[in-house]
Amino acid sequence: MPQLEVIIIDFETNDPIAFVNKDVDLNLDKQARIKGPLDQQLVVLARGLVESGQAGISPSFAQKLGVVAGDAVSILPRTRPSSYAHIRKKFHGESSWTHQEIREIVGDIYAGNLTDLEMSAFLMAQQYLSLDLNEIEALTKSIAEYGERIQFEEEEVYDKHSIGGVPGNKVSLLIVPIVAAAGLLIPKTSSRAITSPSGTADTFEVVANVDFSAEEIQEIAPKIRGMLVWGGGVNLVPVDDMIINRIERPLSLDPRSMIIASILSKKISTSVNHLVLDMPVGIGTKIETRADAVDLGHLFVEVGRRINVQIDAALTYASQPLGHTVGPALEAEEAIQTLRNKGPTSIREKATELAGILIEMGGLANRGHGQQVADDILTSGKAYEKFSEIVEAQGGNPELKIDDLPIGQYTDKIYAPKDGYIISMSNTAVKAIAKAAGAPTDKGAGVRIFRKLGEFVRAGDPIVEVIAERESALEHALLVSKQMPLVTLEGMVLERISSVG
Amino acid sequence: MPQLEVIIIDFETNDPIAFVNKDVDLNLDKQARIKGPLDQQLVVLARGLVESGQAGISPSFAQKLGVVAGDAVSILPRTRPSSYAHIRKKFHGESSWTHQEIREIVGDIYAGNLTDLEMSAFLMAQQYLSLDLNEIEALTKSIAEYGERIQFEEEEVYDKHSIGGVPGNKVSLLIVPIVAAAGLLIPKTSSRAITSPSGTADTFEVVANVDFSAEEIQEIAPKIRGMLVWGGGVNLVPVDDMIINRIERPLSLDPRSMIIASILSKKISTSVNHLVLDMPVGIGTKIETRADAVDLGHLFVEVGRRINVQIDAALTYASQPLGHTVGPALEAEEAIQTLRNKGPTSIREKATELAGILIEMGGLANRGHGQQVADDILTSGKAYEKFSEIVEAQGGNPELKIDDLPIGQYTDKIYAPKDGYIISMSNTAVKAIAKAAGAPTDKGAGVRIFRKLGEFVRAGDPIVEVIAERESALEHALLVSKQMPLVTLEGMVLERISSVG
Repeated sequence: MPQLEVIIIDFETNDPIAFVNKDVDLNLDKQARIKGPLDQQLVVLARGLVESGQAGISPSFAQKLGVVAGDAVSILPRTRPSSYAHIRKKFHGESSWTHQEIREIVGDIYAGNLTDLEMSAFLMAQQYLSLDLNEIEALTKSIAEYGERIQFEEEEVYDKHSIGGVPGNKVSLLIVPIVAAAGLLIPKTSSRAITSPSGTADTFEVVANVDFSAEEIQEIAPKIRGMLVWGGGVNLVPVDDMIINRIERPLSLDPRSMIIASILSKKISTSVNHLVLDMPVGIGTKIETRADAVDLGHLFVEVGRRINVQIDAALTYASQPLGHTVGPALEAEEAIQTLRNKGPTSIREKATELAGILIEMGGLANRGHGQQVADDILTSGKAYEKFSEIVEAQGGNPELKIDDLPIGQYTDKIYAPKDGYIISMSNTAVKAIAKAAGAPTDKGAGVRIFRKLGEFVRAGDPIVEVIAERESALEHALLVSKQMPLVTLEGMVLERISSVG
Repeated sequence: MPQLEVIIIDFETNDPIAFVNKDVDLNLDKQARIKGPLDQQLVVLARGLVESGQAGISPSFAQKLGVVAGDAVSILPRTRPSSYAHIRKKFHGESSWTHQEIREIVGDIYAGNLTDLEMSAFLMAQQYLSLDLNEIEALTKSIAEYGERIQFEEEEVYDKHSIGGVPGNKVSLLIVPIVAAAGLLIPKTSSRAITSPSGTADTFEVVANVDFSAEEIQEIAPKIRGMLVWGGGVNLVPVDDMIINRIERPLSLDPRSMIIASILSKKISTSVNHLVLDMPVGIGTKIETRADAVDLGHLFVEVGRRINVQIDAALTYASQPLGHTVGPALEAEEAIQTLRNKGPTSIREKATELAGILIEMGGLANRGHGQQVADDILTSGKAYEKFSEIVEAQGGNPELKIDDLPIGQYTDKIYAPKDGYIISMSNTAVKAIAKAAGAPTDKGAGVRIFRKLGEFVRAGDPIVEVIAERESALEHALLVSKQMPLVTLEGMVLERISSVG
């Protein structure tokens, strides 16, 4: 292969592209690699634009490759990594992967050696052949081998994690201060919303900074006992991010083994060894049936045991949104009200139940008595005090008033079309409406829920209020609400099937 | 979305790229589409290189999009085609696809609406969940809906097809003239080698032209009764080509349903309704066990019945290369020798067996007597006469002498390392050596096989001769031969497992 001289062209792209003159006979197909000081996959080979003897690459790709203008590079055929043979062996049957095989596959994902197609084959094998416990353990450990770690001098580290899917799930904003007020160390890292209207990090960001380095977390958390930070601020498990961004999201694919490995590898990386796992079950969440949730919960507990993380998996009711608000600022408002003992029972109950489990794990209450301890902490005002401490430690204003929260100015209501009991409220519709209204990017956007499952409504009663920061977003949300049924009222005709004529 | 002005940038690439200025706020992820007179997927969005308000695209992409410099285009978020929901439904179980669902998926593949990842999910569902007969029938018919057709005035059209995998399989060069000499219409389209050292089209191209349009085939074949052409010269089943090029080859994936749909959709497109299917079975071929071959054969016959193609699937022995040559010119040589009644028995037997089945299907012999008729045609010289006619009709020289065949000048031999009976000969090694020697691109490259399975050899006896057109290719082939065992000799120690020390 000829040596080519690097020239830098001012463009950027997600894929590593090199421009090569048409005169250069490369005889390569789409898959190639480029070799400078470092070796990188070259996804697309675009020909033209540069002189013969030159390779035109973008500034960011030059940096990745360790070259500057004038350096020499070679473009070579791609060699398929040997780990792809491990992936392929699943095509023809059920044989399990060894720990070493999974380690090699994950190592090649990290190094960028597997193409998106090859990576998707890895995920499809997991989807269609369900990994066994040994394989999930190996996957979890292998993913945790890469990335930064958060480590503490004390040994016992607590955490709460939700599998996700239920809108309005703001309980982490209560659980962290309750558990921290009890004296346990709970440095919670959360995601921002991916497909939901607000992640815990989005919600807490309304009142404080959530972007901290590993060093900062290691310094602040032991003093305050609790933190609520954005996991993405630390490069914790890059392999998991690559799998999610490159494969799972584009394909709407989420195999059970990856749900477990994704969550538990982060627990290894953040030194967590006691975990309460919130598993919302219900239509429109990640797990739709109780039987599936029980199976998944058992897998979580057993894989946790193998990686020294004590797990209690708690199935929670999730057939409608939690509490009465959805969206970052609206959820922060409701969490703060509940911390001040003015919030809805549903949130208080769920938060103290889950916090109570951690308090029991920490030996601060006997089994069955943790919730009472948590409830006392909440009632006494100590949880709210701790919340304010955390807000202050994370650069927020601990004196913030409820009225200062940036709730959107554009609002409209959705009304009951007729009389009847609400027999279902759609998580999917609430999420879609809140997102259309601008959440989570517009912090003040979302939905306020006035009436919930089981309540009787009269035609014309408002069921929810849609809130937006921009008029166009409000209109968009109302349009979405017309396409998705938000509630079912008893006696409604669900579908009408007629003969023609 | 802002309207952007097209400018043409002089480059080419496999992926549809647009360059947009960094100032334009597109808020799109990697998946987007571009809308001019036509709507096209936009795989990569590269930013930079052009002024704000411009979209820089390549000449070929502009043509696809139906725009010229100065036209207006919009860049929009990609909308996922609804057929992806059909693909996804297989993630969670065994439910079958309806004909209409498969038709929609295939239509979206043809239109370029499914990304490579989404297409691979379609193939993975087939690999892991094995389609049922109705699904395979629907897949076959849907793939055949797109592309050119070859049609004849007469109704009965015969064909021979090999599933492939055995090196040296030159029997089509005998079967077509035998069957045509018997009077049946057999306009055979073949592939070029993909992963093998020579496809039928590569081999016949040594003596004649193989690149014909549908019109030319429709005109020539009925007169001569037989042709041997390259299927790729006609755009027969573009969807199958897309699936093979974009997914199956990059992933080394070949689900059974696609093997059937790929072959039988081409039979629909070429109006074939009587087919003898050669199914080589053996280690190093596509089907390694007899049981698998029997299953696959039954599926072929039944799907054939549903699409009105009469199929006889013939399992053939394939645990070593067929005959004594591998590589385009070498295989042409051996085929011609056999047509002149001077070739090896193995080729003569296989060719007359398969030709005999077609002769029986055509009603020219009773069941069990077709091979005798085929053998008589071969012995009489009529098959060779017909071969020469076909060569001439396809622009070759019917007077060509064996010595005129362009066999490579660089040769070396591989010798038996010790005394013993040959108890196995590796298809995989023979293919790899012939390809390393330059086949099929170098027509004269390949392997001559002197000794075969069951024969006794003495240490130092030549087993094969490696032939190349270039010295460097010969060296490469010899290097490959040192890394892959070509034969196993009885009494050889296959593996030695020792304790340490």
